[in-house]
Amino acid sequence: MTILGSILSDIREKTPLVHHMTNYVTVNDCANITLCIGASPVMAHAEEEVGEMVALAGSLVLNIGTLDHLQIDRMFVAAKAAEKRGIPIILDPVGAGATSLRTKTAHRMIQELSISVLKGNAGEIGTLAGKQAQVRGVDSGGVTGDPTDITCVLAERLGCTVVMSGPTDIISDGSRTLLCENGHPLMGRISGTGCMAASVIGSCVAVTQNYLSASVTGIAAFGIAGERAASEAAGPGSFKYRLFDNMASVTSDDVDRCARTRSV
Amino acid sequence: MTILGSILSDIREKTPLVHHMTNYVTVNDCANITLCIGASPVMAHAEEEVGEMVALAGSLVLNIGTLDHLQIDRMFVAAKAAEKRGIPIILDPVGAGATSLRTKTAHRMIQELSISVLKGNAGEIGTLAGKQAQVRGVDSGGVTGDPTDITCVLAERLGCTVVMSGPTDIISDGSRTLLCENGHPLMGRISGTGCMAASVIGSCVAVTQNYLSASVTGIAAFGIAGERAASEAAGPGSFKYRLFDNMASVTSDDVDRCARTRSV
Amino acid sequence: MTILGSILSDIREKTPLVHHMTNYVTVNDCANITLCIGASPVMAHAEEEVGEMVALAGSLVLNIGTLDHLQIDRMFVAAKAAEKRGIPIILDPVGAGATSLRTKTAHRMIQELSISVLKGNAGEIGTLAGKQAQVRGVDSGGVTGDPTDITCVLAERLGCTVVMSGPTDIISDGSRTLLCENGHPLMGRISGTGCMAASVIGSCVAVTQNYLSASVTGIAAFGIAGERAASEAAGPGSFKYRLFDNMASVTSDDVDRCARTRSV
Repeated sequence: MTILGSILSDIREKTPLVHHMTNYVTVNDCANITLCIGASPVMAHAEEEVGEMVALAGSLVLNIGTLDHLQIDRMFVAAKAAEKRGIPIILDPVGAGATSLRTKTAHRMIQELSISVLKGNAGEIGTLAGKQAQVRGVDSGGVTGDPTDITCVLAERLGCTVVMSGPTDIISDGSRTLLCENGHPLMGRISGTGCMAASVIGSCVAVTQNYLSASVTGIAAFGIAGERAASEAAGPGSFKYRLFDNMASVTSDDVDRCARTRSV
Repeated sequence: MTILGSILSDIREKTPLVHHMTNYVTVNDCANITLCIGASPVMAHAEEEVGEMVALAGSLVLNIGTLDHLQIDRMFVAAKAAEKRGIPIILDPVGAGATSLRTKTAHRMIQELSISVLKGNAGEIGTLAGKQAQVRGVDSGGVTGDPTDITCVLAERLGCTVVMSGPTDIISDGSRTLLCENGHPLMGRISGTGCMAASVIGSCVAVTQNYLSASVTGIAAFGIAGERAASEAAGPGSFKYRLFDNMASVTSDDVDRCARTRSV
Repeated sequence: MTILGSILSDIREKTPLVHHMTNYVTVNDCANITLCIGASPVMAHAEEEVGEMVALAGSLVLNIGTLDHLQIDRMFVAAKAAEKRGIPIILDPVGAGATSLRTKTAHRMIQELSISVLKGNAGEIGTLAGKQAQVRGVDSGGVTGDPTDITCVLAERLGCTVVMSGPTDIISDGSRTLLCENGHPLMGRISGTGCMAASVIGSCVAVTQNYLSASVTGIAAFGIAGERAASEAAGPGSFKYRLFDNMASVTSDDVDRCARTRSV
């Protein structure tokens, strides 16, 4: 078994708790995909309990898809508690580049918090890298410059793993950079696949400190599930339920055999 | 191609952003149905960003299904920003008639905001028209009087398009009134079809200023998808995923051929 | 027809309104399962309207899955209004035992409110019974002691019906205690089945004052739907939509024939 497959089997053996502070649009999908990969989701946001809850967790997923100032404050409280205990934080800067609140908040988070994995689309990652980038609502409008370079340089600057999602996903920790070709266009036809990818990565980083491999494992396994779901789907609705079915049935061996990743 | 079909094809060409401020019960369904018809959903509610977000959008959907005073204030902020830029607003006055908070809020909105399309069930529209109407929770208990007259008179009074949804949908801009017979009873057996109809209309008004035709297009296309989904479904669960599949696959030609609309 | 079957047929005849104040993770599932069993869901949380809304309802479901201090205050307002009118309250103390906020809130609720049915997993019910119990996030880690005794004693102490969910569900009103063996392990592989069980019980208590039988009916009918869904499912995604299909198609006769309950 390669490291990718072993990360997946570790999740299923240890069922780590993944604490989510996320948006109210796709939160149910995040809970279910977390269960499908074999981890255990929990959602909690009250200032009085986030520190206590995150202490039980293997990772903390922050997603600013429907942020407001109260939620931002609570995310910082949870993140500080996570940092104190060495619990990895995954940040999904949804819509950074679309409004100044989102851009500013994401910038503050990468500056003030110890993020382990930053995952966004080309527009969001480009925005945080200080490039000309376009984000319309929560959709990427692309970035000016070489996406692989941007991802690698940002990862090096932040000292964390950066995932730029897209038809080809780019994953870098600043010294090593990988591309992943798994996935299917139907994943862009339903709401929430970006958020679910963060949950899947959150499940992976909860069982290893190798955040680069964890991110690759999550992205590849989720992409493989997407490919299989697409091959059986009649449209976005049937694709979605099959995505959950296939995420639950992907094995470590499948990941080892079907991951289409390469170093650059 | 008729105007109905051309509105649908315009959505798919332009993929307009549809800004939703809606309830937390059916928000995921609203996002997905918006994607299925070919538009791009975004949900944002923070006072600091709603003005900026709506400026990127082709329309603003307001749904008071789980309102509170904070959300009401934010909706007014977003709506005022939309008005300034001529961005059409769709109002779904969920539960108007059931509680005084909902009734008062919906009345304030139709009085103080420039609503382009008001869509509700018989009880909700009847309540806003000042008729004897019954609303139990979020379900219509019917209205006293002729529904077509009520819809037409309210549309004239408000200077907007009014959609009274039901087994036969009534759509009027005060001078012209149409009936639409598309749809299926299973649409009332799942949560969220009313909310999704508003999202679909929101997608249509984002590509044309002919709000009457936009509303008819949305209602007819959604109803056609519902009919097709029902013919394949074993119950509410399988109906729901097929509703998304069929909303995504309905073509302009389907709408032109299968819309069962008539003027009155 | 036994009392179980007649409760189910009464729901479908009367379509009682079930007012939910619940978490934002599984709220859509709660709405849909309520529709599937034949009742009518409504979600409302604003302090200004909860009293008015609950007055229209046949029951009030309180679920603390994503609580915060504002929501707690509003739940007490709604519950006090429900009590005044004799409307039964179902409490799902999600995560009691995991954080002190959840434990304290659930304790306050069972002490200060007239709860009709308290439903939780072994860890949550054990925590509220003052036993050594483990809750990790929202998952039960088990309880020290005899689960049947704990459930029965807690029911007697609180003067309400207590449901301890698990592979074998235990339902007691303090004088009578029943076990229910319906259900399937796949119910634990998706998010929200615990919450949905509370909605189903909420639908049942809305049509009878026999809360013990109402709880048994809900638990058994939901379990039967789960068994049937599992027999047709390829994984958690297809299981979930079939759970809704089967909840809608379970008949009174099915419940009478297939409920695997026994007194202890």
